[in-house]
Amino acid sequence: MAESTGKQEYFIGVDFGGTKILAGVFSPQLKCLGRAKVSTKPQRGPDEVIERIARCIKDAVDECDLKIGQVRGIGIGAPGPVDPDAGKVVFAPNLGWEDVSLKKELEKRLEVPVFLENDTNICTLGVHAVELNSKPKNVVGIFLGTGIGGGIILNGELHSGFNHGAGEIGHMVIEVGGPKCSCGNQGCFEALASRTAIFRKIQNSVKEGKKTVLTEMLGEDLLDMRSGDLRKAIRRGDKLVERVVEEAAEYTGVAVANVINFLNPEVIVLGGGVIDALEDEMMAIIIETARDSAMPGIAKGIEILPSKLGDDAGITGGAVLARRAGK
Amino acid sequence: MAESTGKQEYFIGVDFGGTKILAGVFSPQLKCLGRAKVSTKPQRGPDEVIERIARCIKDAVDECDLKIGQVRGIGIGAPGPVDPDAGKVVFAPNLGWEDVSLKKELEKRLEVPVFLENDTNICTLGVHAVELNSKPKNVVGIFLGTGIGGGIILNGELHSGFNHGAGEIGHMVIEVGGPKCSCGNQGCFEALASRTAIFRKIQNSVKEGKKTVLTEMLGEDLLDMRSGDLRKAIRRGDKLVERVVEEAAEYTGVAVANVINFLNPEVIVLGGGVIDALEDEMMAIIIETARDSAMPGIAKGIEILPSKLGDDAGITGGAVLARRAGK
Repeated sequence: MAESTGKQEYFIGVDFGGTKILAGVFSPQLKCLGRAKVSTKPQRGPDEVIERIARCIKDAVDECDLKIGQVRGIGIGAPGPVDPDAGKVVFAPNLGWEDVSLKKELEKRLEVPVFLENDTNICTLGVHAVELNSKPKNVVGIFLGTGIGGGIILNGELHSGFNHGAGEIGHMVIEVGGPKCSCGNQGCFEALASRTAIFRKIQNSVKEGKKTVLTEMLGEDLLDMRSGDLRKAIRRGDKLVERVVEEAAEYTGVAVANVINFLNPEVIVLGGGVIDALEDEMMAIIIETARDSAMPGIAKGIEILPSKLGDDAGITGGAVLARRAGK
Repeated sequence: MAESTGKQEYFIGVDFGGTKILAGVFSPQLKCLGRAKVSTKPQRGPDEVIERIARCIKDAVDECDLKIGQVRGIGIGAPGPVDPDAGKVVFAPNLGWEDVSLKKELEKRLEVPVFLENDTNICTLGVHAVELNSKPKNVVGIFLGTGIGGGIILNGELHSGFNHGAGEIGHMVIEVGGPKCSCGNQGCFEALASRTAIFRKIQNSVKEGKKTVLTEMLGEDLLDMRSGDLRKAIRRGDKLVERVVEEAAEYTGVAVANVINFLNPEVIVLGGGVIDALEDEMMAIIIETARDSAMPGIAKGIEILPSKLGDDAGITGGAVLARRAGK
């Protein structure tokens, strides 16, 4: 339980993804005091989703026996390019959103300052500030979940780019003519290695008559498949799932090599639901492929790490953003 | 003719590529006073090539009626990742070089301080300083020649990365499983859109019996084919060459979109021999493909420009590097 001093000293970080919304309440020292979680239900449209975010935040505050009036700022990450100054989600293909005034709508409902960023920019900020203790100057974060996003820290600061579009590594084309992506393009990294891409491959293989223990676990339609189910299937010796996850890890290794060759940062951190669930199955392949694909010599000494923050990367980064903005 | 004050006030920029070596003598105000050019002849090995670079520099100095003793510094760009501090070319697949002490060897021969950088880093530096008047904060340069390289300016400074390997955009994989690249990998941008890649495609098509006016112009073997020959062929209505050049422009557009999505700089400049010769044929396709492939919204306002420095980008950047280092 948090001490209820009545002062506006707490920060809230919100990780707002295509599947779920997670809100965390943080102390001024960035200690997480409590959490709440709801599903996103994007099919219900922006208004309803914003209502759910507000509810999730209130639940998290209540969980800590605090009042919303004790919150100094809320940092929220949205899945897609955002305009932090206008407080708008510019484009979020996984939600079907375009130009949604998320900041304004949340501030209207909660009466607390809201700071908006791209979700994986915020995750990278959280990993850099809390997990890496702000030590490395240049860091790239890559997060594999429903979609794939990234974030770039340059000289210790979040690099958001000319149109706040930096870090959209999920839409880096790595296979021209490859599978269709939700962004309208083909062969994007996200269309090859996200949870959505992995599930689609498995579902298509099952339709073609291939065998997997997942159908025993989840039924023929493979409804409600989760990343954790893939791990269970692989540990039960499922060759189909093993191969599909291996391929996703190889594509991820190629994307990591592209980052090494292009930006050459000190650290590349991998996170998101897919990595959290399949770290043991994927990381070694990702690292090996990346080191093999990078130009000889230039990957030397560059760390390729799985984030240990797991589900907390986004909420932690949200709190870091709110604290920075409030200074 | 340069005024011969006897003072060490001149700078030399050297553009050292897989095909040719170009040296330029610059005034302290970065005005080019004279040039010299020799072919590289990489097959003769590093020692002979270094000898040729030294000769080219001496020729350029002599061309301006100056003495090498009046040169304050030499900035040289090498084709591949370099270690500027150690003065070494780490790896240059187009030359067959690994760990060559270029700085030390040139300083021994010329007795003038030599500053080494990756060739396309230097080109980007030259374009940013002289062509863009150091105005945009974040710029990416992409140079298409024998190989493909790039350079990154962040916050007005050259970003060379953790292992001085930043900007190696030619080895960004954009087509997993695509054609073999000189770096050992497959599907690199360089293996799809460099002059080498374009020539290989045309030569293979001719072997398969396809028709092109290039065989009339250059003979059946297409020996000594240059980028300018492609332009001439297209202007004579050659459909094969047109299609191959179009494809290279499309791949380049995909690479530009990847840069927009990942780093989101203000300006992307294209240069190098292929662009210099085929600007009219390629730029419109590059820009259209890049804008189509980038995430909706985030390419807005980003300039995609051909460099007007042409062959002088490298020598200009070399002089900029030498002048900065000498300060």
